[in-house]
Amino acid sequence: MSRLDSFIRRMSAQRDCLNWAAEELKGAPGAILELGLGNGRTYDHLRSLFDAEDIYVFDRHVKAHPDCVPDHAHMIIGDFLSTLPKTAEKMTGKAKLAHCDIGSGDKSASLSLSDRIYPHLEPLLQPGALIISDQPFDGEAFEELPVPAGVPANRYYLYRKRI
Amino acid sequence: MSRLDSFIRRMSAQRDCLNWAAEELKGAPGAILELGLGNGRTYDHLRSLFDAEDIYVFDRHVKAHPDCVPDHAHMIIGDFLSTLPKTAEKMTGKAKLAHCDIGSGDKSASLSLSDRIYPHLEPLLQPGALIISDQPFDGEAFEELPVPAGVPANRYYLYRKRI
Repeated sequence: MSRLDSFIRRMSAQRDCLNWAAEELKGAPGAILELGLGNGRTYDHLRSLFDAEDIYVFDRHVKAHPDCVPDHAHMIIGDFLSTLPKTAEKMTGKAKLAHCDIGSGDKSASLSLSDRIYPHLEPLLQPGALIISDQPFDGEAFEELPVPAGVPANRYYLYRKRI
Repeated sequence: MSRLDSFIRRMSAQRDCLNWAAEELKGAPGAILELGLGNGRTYDHLRSLFDAEDIYVFDRHVKAHPDCVPDHAHMIIGDFLSTLPKTAEKMTGKAKLAHCDIGSGDKSASLSLSDRIYPHLEPLLQPGALIISDQPFDGEAFEELPVPAGVPANRYYLYRKRI
């Protein structure tokens, strides 16, 4: 499989997971947390699935296509480990979905980031909320869910916060 | 259609065009010219379809994943408009395929680059050679071909050099 094949497969898997979550959460109230804006493509996709008013994006900097940048109230700039705790006051128990696109090229650094994010992310989520992540999360509060058909194993990880 | 949808569609269309060309050119001798290395994903895909020994990559700089960089003899660094003419001595009439991933965000600059590349690219191609390009080429020497089924119009352009 070429890198082009693998890239298309990864992007498609990401979309399948987002679409799956939108279907699962249809009609449910709550915020969407997008950890990692990047080029803004998945944010744009989330906007096509959910109300943009409900989507809060976290990233260290804004390097997205200008069309794909949330307004000031929905773009939280800074290190996840400092911005997530700051959001807790307003957001505790409010989110129905977190999409975490937090992996870098460095596998062990990505896993460690995921471990450190977990205690700050978990309180923001409603019972029953979903996490879609490119890194595994390890915590009692979550039940791991099977990925949608066609999504390769160990590429995306799905969790539901226990009720 | 979200930017994620559109991106997946574009990457898939590119792959479909490359796979189509590989099928069309099966068993034919000749070089492959890759104009634009970028991150190296399509170069890696070309390597999965053709003999790497036959693939020559042109780009202004090398910013690809280290696994996707051709060796010194197959990586021609510099502006297309200066490197293509320099290659003519060795390559005239040798190439069976050129893949041109030359568009930038600026549409009129991309079209103008395509026009300026044309006189330098055309002599390197065998009669019957194929061009896959993200920009239209306008020249008597080429016949435009229909894109494979499923590839959106005006996204990729296919040409065959007249015999």
